Amino acid sequence: MKVLTFSLSLRKDSYNKKLLVLATEAIKKNHSEVNVEHLDLLDYVMPAYDGDVEVTKGLPEAAQRFKEKLEGVEALIIASPEYNFSYPGHFKNTFDWISRFQPFPWSNKAVLLLSASMGLVGGNRGLWHLRVPFEYCNAFVYPGMFSLASAHQAFDEAGALLSAEQQKRLETMTLSFMEFSKNLKY
Amino acid sequence: MKVLTFSLSLRKDSYNKKLLVLATEAIKKNHSEVNVEHLDLLDYVMPAYDGDVEVTKGLPEAAQRFKEKLEGVEALIIASPEYNFSYPGHFKNTFDWISRFQPFPWSNKAVLLLSASMGLVGGNRGLWHLRVPFEYCNAFVYPGMFSLASAHQAFDEAGALLSAEQQKRLETMTLSFMEFSKNLKY
Amino acid sequence: MKVLTFSLSLRKDSYNKKLLVLATEAIKKNHSEVNVEHLDLLDYVMPAYDGDVEVTKGLPEAAQRFKEKLEGVEALIIASPEYNFSYPGHFKNTFDWISRFQPFPWSNKAVLLLSASMGLVGGNRGLWHLRVPFEYCNAFVYPGMFSLASAHQAFDEAGALLSAEQQKRLETMTLSFMEFSKNLKY
Amino acid sequence: MKVLTFSLSLRKDSYNKKLLVLATEAIKKNHSEVNVEHLDLLDYVMPAYDGDVEVTKGLPEAAQRFKEKLEGVEALIIASPEYNFSYPGHFKNTFDWISRFQPFPWSNKAVLLLSASMGLVGGNRGLWHLRVPFEYCNAFVYPGMFSLASAHQAFDEAGALLSAEQQKRLETMTLSFMEFSKNLKY
Repeated sequence: MKVLTFSLSLRKDSYNKKLLVLATEAIKKNHSEVNVEHLDLLDYVMPAYDGDVEVTKGLPEAAQRFKEKLEGVEALIIASPEYNFSYPGHFKNTFDWISRFQPFPWSNKAVLLLSASMGLVGGNRGLWHLRVPFEYCNAFVYPGMFSLASAHQAFDEAGALLSAEQQKRLETMTLSFMEFSKNLKY
Repeated sequence: MKVLTFSLSLRKDSYNKKLLVLATEAIKKNHSEVNVEHLDLLDYVMPAYDGDVEVTKGLPEAAQRFKEKLEGVEALIIASPEYNFSYPGHFKNTFDWISRFQPFPWSNKAVLLLSASMGLVGGNRGLWHLRVPFEYCNAFVYPGMFSLASAHQAFDEAGALLSAEQQKRLETMTLSFMEFSKNLKY
Repeated sequence: MKVLTFSLSLRKDSYNKKLLVLATEAIKKNHSEVNVEHLDLLDYVMPAYDGDVEVTKGLPEAAQRFKEKLEGVEALIIASPEYNFSYPGHFKNTFDWISRFQPFPWSNKAVLLLSASMGLVGGNRGLWHLRVPFEYCNAFVYPGMFSLASAHQAFDEAGALLSAEQQKRLETMTLSFMEFSKNLKY
Repeated sequence: MKVLTFSLSLRKDSYNKKLLVLATEAIKKNHSEVNVEHLDLLDYVMPAYDGDVEVTKGLPEAAQRFKEKLEGVEALIIASPEYNFSYPGHFKNTFDWISRFQPFPWSNKAVLLLSASMGLVGGNRGLWHLRVPFEYCNAFVYPGMFSLASAHQAFDEAGALLSAEQQKRLETMTLSFMEFSKNLKY
């Protein structure tokens, strides 16, 4: 089984990336047979979606590469900050390009959404917007979502969550999601 | 396996109820082992949710019965009209009462959402709002949703969809949903 | 000018009702000419919306009274708890009945949304769902919304907000909303 | 008074741009004193929002120019296609950059949203997502939104809407919005 992780925050020291590391560790500890790969969106830069460009030049090379990366992947774990009460626009632009391939490359993937933010809400509103394009494209977005509030005070120096309860919740959710992904039929 | 269906339109001749009949037929034809039961929300009338009433009188008897009906059910098929670009309020009131039980009686159910409306949009916006409380309560809402526009012109006298393509799409989606429900692990 | 306030929490000691009292005080202190009336939804109990009932019996008497209450009102201040990441269902049922009158009784009203909750998020997600039916019915929902988190620790014994900053923010928002309402043209 | 219009579809022959032309004509015919300017988002290309880039290089030059364009503007008319049941990602990326200025450059603008799409729904779902970041940033998004379905069959050769009723509705909505914008106080 193949899992792809990526962060919609592009910052190098992003709290969202830290969440992905923890989710990845939980999988590796419990599912040695699973192949987890991290993808950096900075390696997949695309121009603004423009129907005229699509007609004259076709889909961007980075969209082609991203799409190939999605092939054979059963599950995605995505960590996203919240920008202006919604998802980061740059990723939706990537999503818009990718969804020009037929069938939808997102189709039938299992998706787990995580979120970290410095505010008290934890980025939860952004995730609810983010579900929509994925579900429209027939991805199976896991109902449980992990939202980490006050992210700047949440990690210890080794990158673990200071709250044992939160650390446990993230691990449990990740492993439940793996169970869901492995048994997904449709 | 046990499936429960109900319509958020309370009308006797509701187009949404007709969709449920078609989905039920598709299941029975292909999965004789599955037990499909239709529930009429008119049999589960509840007062407006009021925290004071909950404290003094407890949960309504109809909420208790509804909750018991949900026990042992693996999948729900719900057909909903769209009221004012969102879901029907009366059902959300029922939902609000039911969600006072712990653990959430909706938790871990597979849910398929259908919608019929006389307008051109088919009730799709209402379904997107309806996903949220279900997903919050850990239900697995199927990404595909069936929206029937111009519902008053869509059925023949025997209750089948006049469009063979739509009829096929509804059947295919229902059977895919059954596959999903039967294999659901978490 | 006439302002109507009501709480979507039906509890007698609702934190949402306390917010309405504070908003009302802010108006009375600054706009003695404005008539602010509080309406208790418990006085407007309606059955579940049912198209068959509408055809055979017409709109409920309570819907008729509510609609009359809305006549001549320029602005609404509504305080709402969040139930299951959305708005309270019972009020949407009331809304669904009321919206059967033509033209929409909600049309062209200015609306301010407040929210109090015991959680850390303050009910904000419920308000975003609540905007949709109002805006569909041509109400002018003020962009600013006041969300009070940890409501059970937020009030002093006299009913004021313990945080002077929050108290100020609520007053400022209410007065800005009054300015907006008084000048509303369309 | 100053109005800015722009299309979230970047296509040269975009149906959304055609809607903006019609809205602009309606304003010019009725409000000769109003200055309406059209902005082409292709002149404001920005990289993906990245907090590290913001720290090291500051806000992009195009974000600076866009922000200056917004100064002194009272109203925005935005036409948007629907991509994957939500708004176009590239514009949200622009929005995310612009919202890094304080105070929000979107704040207190009146905003009218239009949408054209070749489907039967007219792009309406995308507009409901688009409202959220604007309203979060204190823009006054007009409740009425104009959604044009089957846009590829909707215009005559001169660019007017073939349906006199739709043409009238667009004009009426635009002029009501102008009334709203001119009287906006807060």
